[in-house]
Amino acid sequence: MITSTKNDQVKAVIELKKKARARNEQGLFVVEGVRMAAELPKDQVKSIYVSETFAKNPENAAILAEYPGYELVSDSVFAVMSDTQTPQGVLALVRQFSYGMDELLKSDRPAHLMVLENLQDPGNLGTILRAGEGAGITGLIMSRDTVDIYNPKVIRSTMGSVFRVPFFYTDDLEQTVLDLKARGIRVFAAHLAGKNNYEQEDYTGNTAFLIGNEGNGLTEKLSDMADTWVKIPMEGKVESLNAAIAASILMFETARQRRA
Amino acid sequence: MITSTKNDQVKAVIELKKKARARNEQGLFVVEGVRMAAELPKDQVKSIYVSETFAKNPENAAILAEYPGYELVSDSVFAVMSDTQTPQGVLALVRQFSYGMDELLKSDRPAHLMVLENLQDPGNLGTILRAGEGAGITGLIMSRDTVDIYNPKVIRSTMGSVFRVPFFYTDDLEQTVLDLKARGIRVFAAHLAGKNNYEQEDYTGNTAFLIGNEGNGLTEKLSDMADTWVKIPMEGKVESLNAAIAASILMFETARQRRA
Repeated sequence: MITSTKNDQVKAVIELKKKARARNEQGLFVVEGVRMAAELPKDQVKSIYVSETFAKNPENAAILAEYPGYELVSDSVFAVMSDTQTPQGVLALVRQFSYGMDELLKSDRPAHLMVLENLQDPGNLGTILRAGEGAGITGLIMSRDTVDIYNPKVIRSTMGSVFRVPFFYTDDLEQTVLDLKARGIRVFAAHLAGKNNYEQEDYTGNTAFLIGNEGNGLTEKLSDMADTWVKIPMEGKVESLNAAIAASILMFETARQRRA
Repeated sequence: MITSTKNDQVKAVIELKKKARARNEQGLFVVEGVRMAAELPKDQVKSIYVSETFAKNPENAAILAEYPGYELVSDSVFAVMSDTQTPQGVLALVRQFSYGMDELLKSDRPAHLMVLENLQDPGNLGTILRAGEGAGITGLIMSRDTVDIYNPKVIRSTMGSVFRVPFFYTDDLEQTVLDLKARGIRVFAAHLAGKNNYEQEDYTGNTAFLIGNEGNGLTEKLSDMADTWVKIPMEGKVESLNAAIAASILMFETARQRRA
């Protein structure tokens, strides 16, 4: 049993939670909580840590049986490893995913991609992944300067969707958008100057949506690359929507059209 | 100029920011930041505090001219009063609003009400108000155990919509829902057991949506009171959506139908 906060594994977990750089160098990320543990992709799991109290609870026998090599950690040390005020007693180191464009397009239905430029809020990114899985997106593409998807706050707010929706980061988002267009994917950007309301366009074919940074929206360069600008019409004095809300409206409109 | 953190006004502001009880007893709340200051409903403002640096900046002359009775506060004391790491130097005490059902129904278009039961996340409430104003809701009704709408985090995330969308809290949400029905408002609840998808119902008439708590959804008692259950169909393994996302999908579907 690990009983010291000076244990190398404990220090490694804490570093992986705090530092995007450590996560990228080691190709790992941290997943915490009972619900998330139940949704882990087993072959991606490198190690599992459980608290004494967790291990003693018969309700957790199923999870423990799946990971016989789990490391036992004293409750007080687990509390230090944990991200939350009331730790649930289970935490995993998971290998990062490595998807390419082909995985985002291999679905048997038309592409439905979300393309995020410089999104900064972990909650927004996690919410887009979760709502996106619900709306049936086929993948997520992010500019390199978007918040780290392996940030514990993002992971938590995806409610497990991060394990199921393919995604990648790109160093050159403009080139990636050109690539999408060359593959016959129609690229839409939500824009105040859009001629048509968003529901007046057709998203039943191969579709990608560009979503911009929370404060500044899309860069002019990227929004100029879209095939079509669409407007989310707004009442009152509202100038813009939260990025996750705007993304969700477009994703669920796409789902609605594809059901019709 | 206020130069001490022991000043009674400084202490009062801090208490109003921290404690819902103090806000309710005094009927006041705190609004912070340049953007929010520009949107303040002038006749609701009780007092304005500005930092020395703010007062010296010629760009702020317009705001200062509107509130000649402003209180000047030293930068270091203002930093203590402020909620944020980089204070913008302007903060207002504002009188709480007092709306009744009539204000939520006085619009010249059909009612479009959001009814929140025990919502707990300040960001969700603020986001629903902001997106709701954009979607043209006519008002917001909250159960007494919903997070305080005057919480600084809610206020900030509304981006000013809290000044423009009428709302009230009710001690008896079930009675209020009965009242809505008696007034000819059709009450919908998002529910996994809904027979129809949400886009198959008609929201062009008087409409209210029930939205439940983040973790537990609607209570059975309240959801049973809805006239109609609607389903937001979900792909993948997603069981539920974030409350603000679900609310936004319903609000913007209503807006879409009313434009059509």
